[in-house]
Amino acid sequence: MMLDETHDPQARSWLADANGHPEFPVQNLPLGVFSTTTAQPRGGVAIGEHVLDVAMISPLLSGDALLAAQAMSQPTLNALLALGTEPRRALRRALFALLTDAASEAKVRDALVPLRQCTLHLPAEVGDYTDFYSGIHHAVNVGRQFRPDAPLLPNYKYVPIGYHGRSSSIDVSGAEVIRPHGQIKRQNDAAPEYRASERLDYELEMGVWIGARNERGSPVPIETASDYIAGLCLLNDWSARDVQAWEYQPLGPFLAKNFLTTVSPWIVTVEALAPFRVPQPPRPAGDPAPLAYLTSGEDQASGAFDITLEVHLRTRRMRDAGAPPQRLSRGNMQFMYWTIAQLVAHHTCNGCNLRPGDLFGTGTISGTDPSSFGSLLELSQGGRAPLQLPNGEQRSFLQDGDELALSAYAESAGRARIGFGACVGVVRSNSPSPEGSGSG
Amino acid sequence: MMLDETHDPQARSWLADANGHPEFPVQNLPLGVFSTTTAQPRGGVAIGEHVLDVAMISPLLSGDALLAAQAMSQPTLNALLALGTEPRRALRRALFALLTDAASEAKVRDALVPLRQCTLHLPAEVGDYTDFYSGIHHAVNVGRQFRPDAPLLPNYKYVPIGYHGRSSSIDVSGAEVIRPHGQIKRQNDAAPEYRASERLDYELEMGVWIGARNERGSPVPIETASDYIAGLCLLNDWSARDVQAWEYQPLGPFLAKNFLTTVSPWIVTVEALAPFRVPQPPRPAGDPAPLAYLTSGEDQASGAFDITLEVHLRTRRMRDAGAPPQRLSRGNMQFMYWTIAQLVAHHTCNGCNLRPGDLFGTGTISGTDPSSFGSLLELSQGGRAPLQLPNGEQRSFLQDGDELALSAYAESAGRARIGFGACVGVVRSNSPSPEGSGSG
Repeated sequence: MMLDETHDPQARSWLADANGHPEFPVQNLPLGVFSTTTAQPRGGVAIGEHVLDVAMISPLLSGDALLAAQAMSQPTLNALLALGTEPRRALRRALFALLTDAASEAKVRDALVPLRQCTLHLPAEVGDYTDFYSGIHHAVNVGRQFRPDAPLLPNYKYVPIGYHGRSSSIDVSGAEVIRPHGQIKRQNDAAPEYRASERLDYELEMGVWIGARNERGSPVPIETASDYIAGLCLLNDWSARDVQAWEYQPLGPFLAKNFLTTVSPWIVTVEALAPFRVPQPPRPAGDPAPLAYLTSGEDQASGAFDITLEVHLRTRRMRDAGAPPQRLSRGNMQFMYWTIAQLVAHHTCNGCNLRPGDLFGTGTISGTDPSSFGSLLELSQGGRAPLQLPNGEQRSFLQDGDELALSAYAESAGRARIGFGACVGVVRSNSPSPEGSGSG
Repeated sequence: MMLDETHDPQARSWLADANGHPEFPVQNLPLGVFSTTTAQPRGGVAIGEHVLDVAMISPLLSGDALLAAQAMSQPTLNALLALGTEPRRALRRALFALLTDAASEAKVRDALVPLRQCTLHLPAEVGDYTDFYSGIHHAVNVGRQFRPDAPLLPNYKYVPIGYHGRSSSIDVSGAEVIRPHGQIKRQNDAAPEYRASERLDYELEMGVWIGARNERGSPVPIETASDYIAGLCLLNDWSARDVQAWEYQPLGPFLAKNFLTTVSPWIVTVEALAPFRVPQPPRPAGDPAPLAYLTSGEDQASGAFDITLEVHLRTRRMRDAGAPPQRLSRGNMQFMYWTIAQLVAHHTCNGCNLRPGDLFGTGTISGTDPSSFGSLLELSQGGRAPLQLPNGEQRSFLQDGDELALSAYAESAGRARIGFGACVGVVRSNSPSPEGSGSG
């Protein structure tokens, strides 16, 4: 899409805390669902340290923007997403105008709720959740643990590998990470046992919110595939590696993954991300070209996103000591082998129908060296090389009490930096805890 | 559950076409969603050659039965399923009483719609669809094609293997089977091509409708797992074998399966099936016992179902000649290695949360010899031994114009036979057809 006035880095809001905000300046305007002690869940837009109750300012809007604002009065954004691109863009332009025009302050101010008073919810009801595997360095790192000489399977560079995940256990940042039990067969065990996972891991992914539908039987051409994408979020594909190792053949991961998937609460729209689109990095020499149904010049020219991704860990002992979170990695969304438009085109190439509110995970996004690895499985080399933390603790996998946070931001010279909000979870046992923090 | 008056094989309805009906006598009363040219989709119960508009007779009901009937006024049965076991049973008893009591005919007759005037819909909105792999003979038959000496993987007899399927492309009997395209790499090809599948197959499965929810983090014990099951249907897990062979490693089937899953329109309740519960067949000598979280004496004693399963094929040439469908196989649901209660207990053993309206597939149910194999992959030995049809045609896989029908019934001495209704689909190309029957 073309950049417009909503991307002007000089634009300032009359809402002081939005200006220079590291995540939610007026150039971002991400979409979410919030509630307060007095208000039922409804659509909102993050601006600085506030949430704008969009339905409340409907009387100030008209046309497509009004249509979008009215859809946001509901407790999920599925209706908004179903409206497609134009109403969403019109709403963005209208909100930007209202928030930057000092004359509008008096009319809008009452619709702003301090973020700290809000409970944030899953932005949409997820009809289907698909997890891809497009982080090639992750695929190599994990494959190498099983097949040192041939870490990538023969299909990897042709097929945007994906599989269906669980919708019911997708929850928003802050959801409890309850350590799962499962069938686990340890190296020298004769038979599996049902026990608590000892190899609980995170996976750093981006989520893709789908904002359009195709009819069953009608593939989405690569040329229009990006029109099906409403926006992005962070996604943590929590994984029980010991359960996964025993269960995953021949039909793929199941209970190792479906106990919880955490997303950040805001849909950062493709409109907000337009200034951060970059060419898809060229494939290494010798790699096959994508098949024709996955190839578009425009997508190759601007289908990737320059988004910085970080992971931080704060153990219980670090929290108790008032120590700051420790960064485990810093990577970039450009490490994906496929663009998200290619994921849409591939997902529908057999006629599979997408619906507004569907969610894709990109797959774990790792870079080429350990400073950018997106899981403990990779960082600890399958548990063989535990991570050393500054306070002397070690981690091969997550321990009860660990707080794990994903974060992401886009910034580039001459552009306002935008962020994604929190994607955090604290691990707890599923047995009654001595602190009385919960029960199984 | 205990048998009651609703299972009395001598019971007769004042609705003559219900008595001796091969599928929908008064002892069945399956739940579905129907519409007519003048009525929006709503809940109904099949009785003989009619559908009973349940909400319409609400004034005749009270208590739990009324609650259930009111829930059936909606266009999906999710609200009914969410009510759980007791209201569903109360409704069954009340409808049985009304349909067997001649004095009620005058009050109920107007709520009966001829089945032939009804369009049947998916009975519930499927939140999550999980496909299992519990047909052990199918697993052996398929595994043998890849690993002749060790067809079953080491986890098979411990883990009720399952994976997540696609909800959006689940449709009801009669939905068009549009031959999918996909990446296919034929044996001597250097690289895959995007082309129409040439190895389109069906899979004979039973579907399991979930009628209760558990909280995330709270596994369902095997002892109460059967309370989470509302009823059964037929399920055809259409499969593109050539797409599957190339894409499925390492994360399992994806585009090979998610272009369409067809179910029969009626939820045949566990209450209707109570007379057909049988002991889970003993495991062969040498097989490991299920782990404790999958073991319950009651489930072993009555957790299986004696349901006969059939597959019929009618090619276009057979239809044109007025020839009857050809039976491809006849099997039984008892060929499952796991009970459906074990599937519920396993699915939730990591804390994964189920919701009313979730759907399980059992996996392809094949018997021990070809007369009961549940897919063409098995019947044609991977395409090497094409099936000979009576009119001289051959089939290794499905051709355009083929009509494939699954059917099922439960019958035993001294019991009224009950059936499941149709689960049928006709294959067509996704290119514009010379008959003008559709476009891609």
